[in-house]
Amino acid sequence: MSKQIRVTVWNEFRHEQKNEVCRALYPQGMHAVIAAALQQDPQLSVRTATLDEPEHGLTTEVLDQTDVLTWWGHLAHHEVSDEIVDRVQQRVLAGMGLIVLHSGHFAKVFKRLMGTSCSLRWREAAEKERLWVVNPSHPIAAGFGPYIELPQTEMYGEHFDIPAPDDLVFVSWFEGGEVFRSGCCFNRGLGKIFYFRPGHETYPIYHNAEVMQVIRNAVHWAAFAGNDAVIPFYGKCCEPLEPLKVRE
Amino acid sequence: MSKQIRVTVWNEFRHEQKNEVCRALYPQGMHAVIAAALQQDPQLSVRTATLDEPEHGLTTEVLDQTDVLTWWGHLAHHEVSDEIVDRVQQRVLAGMGLIVLHSGHFAKVFKRLMGTSCSLRWREAAEKERLWVVNPSHPIAAGFGPYIELPQTEMYGEHFDIPAPDDLVFVSWFEGGEVFRSGCCFNRGLGKIFYFRPGHETYPIYHNAEVMQVIRNAVHWAAFAGNDAVIPFYGKCCEPLEPLKVRE
Amino acid sequence: MSKQIRVTVWNEFRHEQKNEVCRALYPQGMHAVIAAALQQDPQLSVRTATLDEPEHGLTTEVLDQTDVLTWWGHLAHHEVSDEIVDRVQQRVLAGMGLIVLHSGHFAKVFKRLMGTSCSLRWREAAEKERLWVVNPSHPIAAGFGPYIELPQTEMYGEHFDIPAPDDLVFVSWFEGGEVFRSGCCFNRGLGKIFYFRPGHETYPIYHNAEVMQVIRNAVHWAAFAGNDAVIPFYGKCCEPLEPLKVRE
Amino acid sequence: MSKQIRVTVWNEFRHEQKNEVCRALYPQGMHAVIAAALQQDPQLSVRTATLDEPEHGLTTEVLDQTDVLTWWGHLAHHEVSDEIVDRVQQRVLAGMGLIVLHSGHFAKVFKRLMGTSCSLRWREAAEKERLWVVNPSHPIAAGFGPYIELPQTEMYGEHFDIPAPDDLVFVSWFEGGEVFRSGCCFNRGLGKIFYFRPGHETYPIYHNAEVMQVIRNAVHWAAFAGNDAVIPFYGKCCEPLEPLKVRE
Repeated sequence: MSKQIRVTVWNEFRHEQKNEVCRALYPQGMHAVIAAALQQDPQLSVRTATLDEPEHGLTTEVLDQTDVLTWWGHLAHHEVSDEIVDRVQQRVLAGMGLIVLHSGHFAKVFKRLMGTSCSLRWREAAEKERLWVVNPSHPIAAGFGPYIELPQTEMYGEHFDIPAPDDLVFVSWFEGGEVFRSGCCFNRGLGKIFYFRPGHETYPIYHNAEVMQVIRNAVHWAAFAGNDAVIPFYGKCCEPLEPLKVRE
Repeated sequence: MSKQIRVTVWNEFRHEQKNEVCRALYPQGMHAVIAAALQQDPQLSVRTATLDEPEHGLTTEVLDQTDVLTWWGHLAHHEVSDEIVDRVQQRVLAGMGLIVLHSGHFAKVFKRLMGTSCSLRWREAAEKERLWVVNPSHPIAAGFGPYIELPQTEMYGEHFDIPAPDDLVFVSWFEGGEVFRSGCCFNRGLGKIFYFRPGHETYPIYHNAEVMQVIRNAVHWAAFAGNDAVIPFYGKCCEPLEPLKVRE
Repeated sequence: MSKQIRVTVWNEFRHEQKNEVCRALYPQGMHAVIAAALQQDPQLSVRTATLDEPEHGLTTEVLDQTDVLTWWGHLAHHEVSDEIVDRVQQRVLAGMGLIVLHSGHFAKVFKRLMGTSCSLRWREAAEKERLWVVNPSHPIAAGFGPYIELPQTEMYGEHFDIPAPDDLVFVSWFEGGEVFRSGCCFNRGLGKIFYFRPGHETYPIYHNAEVMQVIRNAVHWAAFAGNDAVIPFYGKCCEPLEPLKVRE
Repeated sequence: MSKQIRVTVWNEFRHEQKNEVCRALYPQGMHAVIAAALQQDPQLSVRTATLDEPEHGLTTEVLDQTDVLTWWGHLAHHEVSDEIVDRVQQRVLAGMGLIVLHSGHFAKVFKRLMGTSCSLRWREAAEKERLWVVNPSHPIAAGFGPYIELPQTEMYGEHFDIPAPDDLVFVSWFEGGEVFRSGCCFNRGLGKIFYFRPGHETYPIYHNAEVMQVIRNAVHWAAFAGNDAVIPFYGKCCEPLEPLKVRE
């Protein structure tokens, strides 16, 4: 339980290079701020990777050494190569955890793993959001009060076109009148996936201590702790474990 | 509730042309036998479509007039064009029901909608299967006893790499020692999907009355009866429904 | 599918006798208004029952002839006899549908079927509620737009201490800042249960056409259509279906 | 994560005093063998309690110091006082983990927390059981192969009348032809519950290393790691978090 968890923080890293407000908040990129907050937990070993690195920084070697991958993208989902999407999906099914942040709902790899459009309604109006805990037994909900309040966020509203989560942890209230399932757990293959809504690039979301507590909790939850003995039998023709009746 | 349900029965229709045993069981193809059994229900209007027709028989016109699609494929999953897979997936998300049969677990469109490998262990040894009802409140389980017994089947065994079903209706017992989640309901977008395990091409599975009762039940369950008023708002920037506080 | 569904509308019927506002809205009791709205559907045969009738109007004969029971209570949950609670629970497990309305979240029979406290936070301040559809494939969500708006309601807020619903259909937004899982489906035994939040006695909730559309939808969904062949085997010692190896 | 988990192993402890076979397997009682196996994990602090102790050994003090309770009962479910059942239920809803073993499916406290009859079919014929992993991402499934095999067990068969588990980890195959959902996770209130099927008193089930690995895994999973900040608001009338429109 207390062994090191290797985290790769992936960022598209484009807004920070184009948008003054975003750059002021995240001069080294959102990935740098997320990584620093995760690194405060001594059990986590954190590296970063970005879209414009070769293979988007997600080589087979990097993924093989990644227990949990966090994903932030928005402007350039279409620039992520299908080969890397395949590779990330395969690693998730083989047990890698995946934390999908905010506009990552439209990332190719999230849509691939969900099988749905992952669409939603939205609005960018600096409005208030309140994330309510709806499953208080869940470890991702630990370390704060009955809700988390964010003074200014982009709104995402229902219907959010995802499969029903295997566990629903947070539901958001928005000042403008909408709700959203904003903390959603999914098991896919041997991997665990957490979608977490907050994170617009021009608000200081990843400087918020409670948001980062959720992401740290999610990393611990998503690190593989299951049974990989099932893998060798996938797609295999297997001898019977019991004698079959002879038939003629 | 009593309006007509338009069903399209899709079949790869290759085994029937190559394999003597299969042809003897299904001289006109499995689709013909499945369609005939569905047609016994006066509420169902049934057509068929096969791989080797233009656009695999699944033109936009056909899909637009299909409430529920049933799918049988095995040898030639890779021959199904990605364009048609996209089209079927979009129709499911927009509300078309989908019944995936037996080796259709590896169909491109099922893997696409699940997001997982859909792998399993298997064996072809004419062994006994018994499908136990594990959710007796579900309408797909209506019309037979506490289990369905099939004297000779191909075995499919766990771990079956699918998302946890939204409803699990049947679990199979196999003579050779395995179990399998063999009747699985999924909601995806506005559509409903039922995976049903029985169906190997060289056993008379679709001549079995209880198997066909399950498929008829599933067609009724999968026909859209929900709310499509959510669709116009997908991906839309929406005005606030409540006045927002003025911020400076 | 088109056979008659027998509905019993149960009401505590106390507020109507004590409170002027409630009486003005519901001179014959809430049950009368709910029953009338259900009776508009020719497939439903509706009767009513109230707390102060002998056996609370829920004799064995009445329950045996009830396919779906709706339940409204608030002031006098503790006056419902445990014997009747047992009887209703048994009928639900044997296949009767149950629609629990508003303050019925604290009814003995709902707490019994859930196993949890069914607690929540609340406020009575005539505030606005908006119920968002989060599962548009579900038949209970049919017949209106992407949300239902109620101008004045009592607020119920999370955490609502229920088991995770088998299907979550609605999530509510409240003007005062809270959210709530306000349309929740549960399968228990052979029975189906729907909890539906709206319904405070001093607002004209059951005069709202969309609210009544939801309740009608829920009645259709909850009527038993499953498999009762499993019942005779509960608690039974059963002969093996396959020969066991002889052991010495 | 690495703080001590306080486990109380509860046992009815009657079979061991009446039945020679059971006593030979468990001279000090099943609880002694279970406790010893758990105690091998240095993170666990283990005590035991039995039916015939005052308050069944489950005083308020003991429960307040219990993070996870394991429960084995069979002959004397009816002798467990309702007061203690209430107390255990309240502790579970407040965050205590509960591991229910084998014939504990009929324990008052399990039926109370499930809301259903918890009935099943059964047979005592020393037959083979094989527990298949159906959720390999789950930590309870860690530490063994794709299944666990038990050479001689009592059979439990479907339909098992429980709510659909929040996570289904194991499904059992039985030599005599049945299947069973044998490893089931439930979240109730702040607590986590695991039902684990194996454990008949006259077979050496709790001497099996893999069975005890599962129970140890379940203890770690069930220990509270969530959010108890929601508790003070249950049943409370709460001031609005946002200003409400003035209405006249």
